[in-house]
Amino acid sequence: MELKTYSRDLFQATQTEICAALESADGKAAFLNDFWERADSGGGHGGGGLTRVMENGAVFEKAGVNFSQVQGQLPAAMSKKLVNREEPSAFFAVGVSLVLHPYSPMIPTVHANFRFLEVAELRWFGGGCDLTPYYIFDEDCRHFHATLKAECERHSPSYYPEFKRCCDEYFFLPHRQETRGIGGIFFDYLGKEDAQSLEKIAAFVKDVAQAFIPAYLPIVQRRRSEPWGEREKKFQLLRRGRYVEFNLLYDRGTQFGLQTGGRSESILMSLPSQVEWHYNPQISAGSREAELVEVLRQPRQWA
Amino acid sequence: MELKTYSRDLFQATQTEICAALESADGKAAFLNDFWERADSGGGHGGGGLTRVMENGAVFEKAGVNFSQVQGQLPAAMSKKLVNREEPSAFFAVGVSLVLHPYSPMIPTVHANFRFLEVAELRWFGGGCDLTPYYIFDEDCRHFHATLKAECERHSPSYYPEFKRCCDEYFFLPHRQETRGIGGIFFDYLGKEDAQSLEKIAAFVKDVAQAFIPAYLPIVQRRRSEPWGEREKKFQLLRRGRYVEFNLLYDRGTQFGLQTGGRSESILMSLPSQVEWHYNPQISAGSREAELVEVLRQPRQWA
Repeated sequence: MELKTYSRDLFQATQTEICAALESADGKAAFLNDFWERADSGGGHGGGGLTRVMENGAVFEKAGVNFSQVQGQLPAAMSKKLVNREEPSAFFAVGVSLVLHPYSPMIPTVHANFRFLEVAELRWFGGGCDLTPYYIFDEDCRHFHATLKAECERHSPSYYPEFKRCCDEYFFLPHRQETRGIGGIFFDYLGKEDAQSLEKIAAFVKDVAQAFIPAYLPIVQRRRSEPWGEREKKFQLLRRGRYVEFNLLYDRGTQFGLQTGGRSESILMSLPSQVEWHYNPQISAGSREAELVEVLRQPRQWA
Repeated sequence: MELKTYSRDLFQATQTEICAALESADGKAAFLNDFWERADSGGGHGGGGLTRVMENGAVFEKAGVNFSQVQGQLPAAMSKKLVNREEPSAFFAVGVSLVLHPYSPMIPTVHANFRFLEVAELRWFGGGCDLTPYYIFDEDCRHFHATLKAECERHSPSYYPEFKRCCDEYFFLPHRQETRGIGGIFFDYLGKEDAQSLEKIAAFVKDVAQAFIPAYLPIVQRRRSEPWGEREKKFQLLRRGRYVEFNLLYDRGTQFGLQTGGRSESILMSLPSQVEWHYNPQISAGSREAELVEVLRQPRQWA
């Protein structure tokens, strides 16, 4: 199996299927298609992608689903970090990445990303899927985690506990002492040290990519007519600020993309449309807002 | 002259004077005073400060003027970066930092920061002052730069050209290929290699800190009744997104603060209240919005 071709086909199909399901769930807006190409600028970089964005839908205020394939020379610092080489390395990366920001504060923001990388002679898969609710509904959190867990368990009993823990560790804002959301799964460098298992891992990545819609859409359907008011909207706008803080201060994907000369508009489409920051906002003890913060300070087992 | 005491007194007085002038110019809102203290947590850090924030004024949507003094042990990585030592170093830092976000898109956002640092046996001053307009008014840009230039020239003919260039270089977003605004002056490590000149530099820092109000307030007065509508507001909200991108992706002060365990709410008070990100916004050629982008892509000599 040629893993580059396999991954490209899988991630393109994932993009198509997810966008179709989201358009159908939204019922109002449609995805705009932005094909882009980057010629080799002499720095050895080239690539392209299809950025798909839907704004101002009935459910989704901003939904971005991005496919891209890039190759070139990795700068020495990045090469050192990824494959422990002092010199620049040839790289190839293909992936699909999505962030959905619903209008209603009752529907969680969600992120998923699946990618295949080749740097020098090393190859690996990475990715994951995590949920960022503004208000906690236990059954939603349990459903999201249980769906991902079931998919993981078809491949290895160690996957879910390991990837769930990695997710809580990765999506963490040290300066806030909070996780970004209630997590999900996160994995990286899968197969890097064990090339023989790459085909099995490829099958796992396919299954988990296909689990995104069943993990997330039932939550949208369940919460789309949940009532909310000004208070909930205000809280959502503030919490979106934390989302921006994570993505710009800590997210490795954002850093990798911007530092390797990626297309800024495609990378930063993960940021919500409307965001607020106010000085030192206070939350009443015992409120539903306080419940969220408590969950973010002490990650739970949901499945 | 004890430079620690001198700097602390100077920066506290700067905060008091600037806040009084801003309250008087705003005419509606008042600064809230938030004293905070951080006990030595065992990591050798301690300090405190006075965070002053004004929100929802007549002119200022969000204005933060922060004084802080912190000391402790600098982590090895930061120590390596600042004074080229492999081991952690004792540090002392005192400074005043302000960011003002006016409500009207006709009035520029402004930032200023003045600080004194002692790391191991090395001491230096850093700081600067820069303007981020949403719409270009030539006389405002010229006034701002000319005021700072005059102050620089009282101390050294090399200061303004050097610090103006540093400012354009520092406040630059590589992923956007734009400066953050029209610049001003920026200096760092002043006196680090030349301890004998520290007293003269201290006098320069005092003069330039006192020049902030005459550099900025006349612009506020000139533009406060300038008309604007939905189009200008929308553009301002998008441009504020670039401000957030700079501060979280690149600003060394923000990184230093968050990595040395600074108080997040004081550090991130620089972020505007309301911000928007939309996918790939387009600007009409020849418009006033295009004029701004042109200036940001090709910094000008304003004085």
